[in-house]
Amino acid sequence: MKRIILAAAALLLLPAMIMAQTKKSFTLDDLMWGGSNYWNLQPKSLFTAWWGDRLVELGPDEVRRSTDEKGRSVYPEVMFTAESVNRLLTDSTQGQVRNLAYARFPYADRSEAFLQTGRINLLYDWQKGQVVWTQPRTAGSSHEDFCFASKSVAFVKDWNLYVTTADGRTHQVSTDGSRELVYGQSVHRDEFGISKGTFWSPDGSLLAFYRMDQSMVTDYPMVDIAHRVAQLAPEKYPMAGMTSHKVTVGVFNPATDRTVYLQAGDPTDRYFTNIAWSPDSKTVYVIELPRTQDKAELVAYDAATGERRGVLYTETNERYVEPMHPIVFLPWDSSKFVYLSRRDGYNHIYLFSKDGKELGQLTSGAFEVTDILGFNVKSKSIIYRSNEASPIRYNNYRVDVKTRKRTLLGAAEGVHSGGSLSASGAYLVDRWSAPDKYRRIDLLSTTKSTLRTLQDAPSPWTDYAVPEVDCGTIKAADGTTDLYYRLVKPAGFDPARKYPTVVYVYGGPHAHNVDESWFYAMRPWEAYMAQKGYVIFVLDNRGSENRGFAFESCTHRHLGDIEMQDQMKGVEFLRTLPYVDADRLGVHGWSFGGFMTTNLMCSYPDVFKVGVAGGPVIDWKFYEVMYGERYMDTPQENPDGYRSSSLLPKAKNLKGRLQIIVGYNDPTCVLQHSLSFLRACEDAGTQPDYFVYPGQGHNMMGRDMVHLHERITRYFDDYLK
Amino acid sequence: MKRIILAAAALLLLPAMIMAQTKKSFTLDDLMWGGSNYWNLQPKSLFTAWWGDRLVELGPDEVRRSTDEKGRSVYPEVMFTAESVNRLLTDSTQGQVRNLAYARFPYADRSEAFLQTGRINLLYDWQKGQVVWTQPRTAGSSHEDFCFASKSVAFVKDWNLYVTTADGRTHQVSTDGSRELVYGQSVHRDEFGISKGTFWSPDGSLLAFYRMDQSMVTDYPMVDIAHRVAQLAPEKYPMAGMTSHKVTVGVFNPATDRTVYLQAGDPTDRYFTNIAWSPDSKTVYVIELPRTQDKAELVAYDAATGERRGVLYTETNERYVEPMHPIVFLPWDSSKFVYLSRRDGYNHIYLFSKDGKELGQLTSGAFEVTDILGFNVKSKSIIYRSNEASPIRYNNYRVDVKTRKRTLLGAAEGVHSGGSLSASGAYLVDRWSAPDKYRRIDLLSTTKSTLRTLQDAPSPWTDYAVPEVDCGTIKAADGTTDLYYRLVKPAGFDPARKYPTVVYVYGGPHAHNVDESWFYAMRPWEAYMAQKGYVIFVLDNRGSENRGFAFESCTHRHLGDIEMQDQMKGVEFLRTLPYVDADRLGVHGWSFGGFMTTNLMCSYPDVFKVGVAGGPVIDWKFYEVMYGERYMDTPQENPDGYRSSSLLPKAKNLKGRLQIIVGYNDPTCVLQHSLSFLRACEDAGTQPDYFVYPGQGHNMMGRDMVHLHERITRYFDDYLK
Repeated sequence: MKRIILAAAALLLLPAMIMAQTKKSFTLDDLMWGGSNYWNLQPKSLFTAWWGDRLVELGPDEVRRSTDEKGRSVYPEVMFTAESVNRLLTDSTQGQVRNLAYARFPYADRSEAFLQTGRINLLYDWQKGQVVWTQPRTAGSSHEDFCFASKSVAFVKDWNLYVTTADGRTHQVSTDGSRELVYGQSVHRDEFGISKGTFWSPDGSLLAFYRMDQSMVTDYPMVDIAHRVAQLAPEKYPMAGMTSHKVTVGVFNPATDRTVYLQAGDPTDRYFTNIAWSPDSKTVYVIELPRTQDKAELVAYDAATGERRGVLYTETNERYVEPMHPIVFLPWDSSKFVYLSRRDGYNHIYLFSKDGKELGQLTSGAFEVTDILGFNVKSKSIIYRSNEASPIRYNNYRVDVKTRKRTLLGAAEGVHSGGSLSASGAYLVDRWSAPDKYRRIDLLSTTKSTLRTLQDAPSPWTDYAVPEVDCGTIKAADGTTDLYYRLVKPAGFDPARKYPTVVYVYGGPHAHNVDESWFYAMRPWEAYMAQKGYVIFVLDNRGSENRGFAFESCTHRHLGDIEMQDQMKGVEFLRTLPYVDADRLGVHGWSFGGFMTTNLMCSYPDVFKVGVAGGPVIDWKFYEVMYGERYMDTPQENPDGYRSSSLLPKAKNLKGRLQIIVGYNDPTCVLQHSLSFLRACEDAGTQPDYFVYPGQGHNMMGRDMVHLHERITRYFDDYLK
Repeated sequence: MKRIILAAAALLLLPAMIMAQTKKSFTLDDLMWGGSNYWNLQPKSLFTAWWGDRLVELGPDEVRRSTDEKGRSVYPEVMFTAESVNRLLTDSTQGQVRNLAYARFPYADRSEAFLQTGRINLLYDWQKGQVVWTQPRTAGSSHEDFCFASKSVAFVKDWNLYVTTADGRTHQVSTDGSRELVYGQSVHRDEFGISKGTFWSPDGSLLAFYRMDQSMVTDYPMVDIAHRVAQLAPEKYPMAGMTSHKVTVGVFNPATDRTVYLQAGDPTDRYFTNIAWSPDSKTVYVIELPRTQDKAELVAYDAATGERRGVLYTETNERYVEPMHPIVFLPWDSSKFVYLSRRDGYNHIYLFSKDGKELGQLTSGAFEVTDILGFNVKSKSIIYRSNEASPIRYNNYRVDVKTRKRTLLGAAEGVHSGGSLSASGAYLVDRWSAPDKYRRIDLLSTTKSTLRTLQDAPSPWTDYAVPEVDCGTIKAADGTTDLYYRLVKPAGFDPARKYPTVVYVYGGPHAHNVDESWFYAMRPWEAYMAQKGYVIFVLDNRGSENRGFAFESCTHRHLGDIEMQDQMKGVEFLRTLPYVDADRLGVHGWSFGGFMTTNLMCSYPDVFKVGVAGGPVIDWKFYEVMYGERYMDTPQENPDGYRSSSLLPKAKNLKGRLQIIVGYNDPTCVLQHSLSFLRACEDAGTQPDYFVYPGQGHNMMGRDMVHLHERITRYFDDYLK
């Protein structure tokens, strides 16, 4: 299979010379987020929100209603302006509304917009032209979690958790918070889909929250140089096989000012994930795993007493189970919930009764459900996203809970993001792109055909000489599995020439690099490199995401091995291309891709001449417990796997030019990785290069992105070109 | 002025081609300390000691008497062997003597050798064949300071100071020692010539010692990665202008187990340096400076009571005073001492009465006395070292205290190290080298002519193709001062070719790079680079050592400016040489030389194409109080000087290739320097390179020296060649 995308300009039948003269060249400032010209090239965004089933378009200064509750266009109807609100905020302690793009319309039956200033939360009734409710925001707070049902807001200040109720009263939930004892924040290092630490009950009367005791966890000593004298900025970092933190879940009741903790037993070496509430606000559900991650139990707790009601469902897998989605109750039947499970090898939707009885599998097949967007209440269907049509295509679908009939929503092509469902689920704002479409935003009915296109953003690159991009498949090292690649050809491509070629790689779980989005998801730097005369090749090897459990987990206990075998099949393929100069092969990747890059440079020193490895894992024993042990088990359980996957013994093999680049303050892949590798190279007499970005973390932010990619490019220019 | 040194081999009238074939090429393993072949190329060392005026040659397994007390050769007469001692150490708690090279013969009238095992100190009477005294050594101790007069030993264990007396009893001097409160160790970061923290009185009855309270000093957070999880390894580091430590001097009396502290007053922002004892063990002398370092006072204290007796002598200088030598009493007249002072612009010897009355200047002229070796008691003369004959020649001299007549000792040429005087000062072991002499060791009478040559080590490079080295002078940027340079020409030098040229630079105080030692002090790496086809140029600019106070201190308050002006005169000179390719100029230096390298790369971006800066100072505000404020005052006092000497604002000028290399655990020039420079370059969009050696400090040790110089060489090969 092979697909080719040519930019519109490239299809014009003009001589190449003239084209080259009339088209602009990219600079990194054009292409990179953080570049000085980046935003000038980006088509204007369209922000939307729902007021019940009515679509609202949000500007910084005004909000406009776009449809009525039947999806009929009323555009443009200005609902209100920031100025009209701010005019009412005369008290200097109230602050001013700065941007309406964050306005929300939580009550379908009331014309009240939820807005924030730096000082207060407020509800503005745009029909009455009145601020109908305010609530103070606490200075220095973070992790705010506002509940529209009760108008209570949870927040963290100075490591402690607080709740301010609708009446403006502030309740202190915890008093002993510290960096060792963390309340109301995400736990388990954001694994298992965890991204926050507070969970309001549906009626807003109770707040479930995480409490994490990490006093027993080793500090990784990071250093912040941005002081008169550099200061220690330690990070609690549980490394593979070492003592981990202990998490408990509390439920706070603002009405009684009391907290009960779920009676989950000894939290040592356990994970408490995917917190959910029953629709009646009486039961808390937690998906619990032992540290071995080979079992997931859905456990129900009485929210009022913390009493453990029992295990509703258990899933086991000798490799690992990785629940990423809390259960969700059917809005039209509070006795049933849906559960996402990969137990048949792919992530699918299952229906359960609330007592844990399995009622059936709603989706099935060799594809993965990636998200549940919500429900269409009227049609009793679930709206979800999957890559059913093709492993690299992501569409939204509706599945009828009764008939299990699946219906595609919106355009068949491309990569659709989750989108945003209206209150009843009748309408969907569908954001998507395709290889030749930069960004489309459609307003869909989830039961009927497309209503209308809200935005069809043109390519921001029409004035530029853009590269030709191929997409296709090759066979994995197992001889049977299809792997998807992207191949970016140099600007002014001449098939008779031989080009230096760089393999860009990630290769780890929870990510893919090739799909049917714009230019097959080409990263802007690839366009830059193509312009400079490089071929870029990107292959999603086994171990990467959304191809099923077997595809992802075949790397279990020996990360790197199968991934590299597949990448070498990519190299085999490249060698069949007459325009690829196999004597000038480079490789570049970040994070897991930095691990892959370093590994490839040291495992195939005669194949790859130049590599740039960003924020690499060097030895999985330096990585954290949650992610690391899922794929590698502990060093105690899998000594051979840790030994053979470590790049420290391979440091001696380095022949080509390898530059390792890290954020000096990387809390994810700590500097011990790269520094240990340097030490090993120094001891072995090999010569890697190294660079650091002080103040940056695992990924570069802002203008450093330009600097970084200038640096990466220069390295290939110096040694590969 | 110009001198040329050609290796003997190069003088042979053989065609160059044949020479090149018959001579070996250097590897870094041959040349670098830490290289695998380094020691094979080094001529065997000759270790000596004195037994009174009798010379003893020390081997690992036996010691031989070489002369009698009249300097007459008795060689070889084996005094004893390690085996003969170890045969007597039958108790397993006594350990075994491992190496006799450290044997000492403290008592001219007794045949007793002082030896150590890992467990004990001992005196071995080689005539009786008996161990006549032993003393336990404490496990885990450090900073041992043994006193031959009393056979007491001072040592530090777990931050506290102890004394074990001759009777084997151990006395605990301090109990509250910690890394915040340091006893018995060097203070003031080893400035002012301080290298230890314990000072026995001449009779060995009293121990003066340093106590340093550094609890108020900021910790620099260094990280040691050589643990399962990297650990904090903080270093108390007082930065320029910030709070400094407080030093006091105690005197411990083992006979009473009591300590008195010198009544010096509030130690805040003061330096207590150059501790000395009166011959009668009753008075302690300290040279004291305020933090401003513009005044030095020689203060006497009663050792028994700590009472401050008064100031004997005061020296001031609006730039700085830098006492580096404790006073020394005349052995034949305990009422007089000598004091080294630069008050007339050069370091010279002054005679004082013990009450502080100045009795005259014993040496004078435009040269510097670098060391006092001791005294010839009989002739009542002082043996010292100076560069009187030439700024780059260092000889030993005798000055008659009465007549002030100076007499050269030993060979006129070359660079003589301090050497080792016999007990009465009648004889001197004189170690020296000259441009064409690798190492000579002569035994001299300090009153008569040379007695004999103990070693005339041949060049270890006779089998190798060695470069031609020139030495000469150019005028400094002031138009008048002579600066000495070394010019190393490429192997197989062809004057018709144009060679890439690297300037090696240090440029700071307390060091020089060019002198009349072997190959004019050429560093081995220079020979390696010459072999690879580079010209190497080294110039000692103003600000470097041993050329007088004005020469050194003209850089005061604006380090880098004059130093660079002089180095640019060196570049001017290089441009006059037809074989220097001025379009391919590089620069390399370490520490102050790293500061100079980075400064030159950023200040003259069109002159220097490639630079390698090791452990650089980037901003003097990150350097320590003692050294930094001597030359720069405080940032509060000299804001303009700090601002204009900082390389952070110059980061934006970088055009060429600059690699900064540091030891990751550098406690001298902390990583905040280089990391801040990287941050400044990243913010300015310039692209330096960077490399670190985890576990290394300010200077690389061991095998990393080979790795480092391979790395430095490769950088010039990549970008300059």
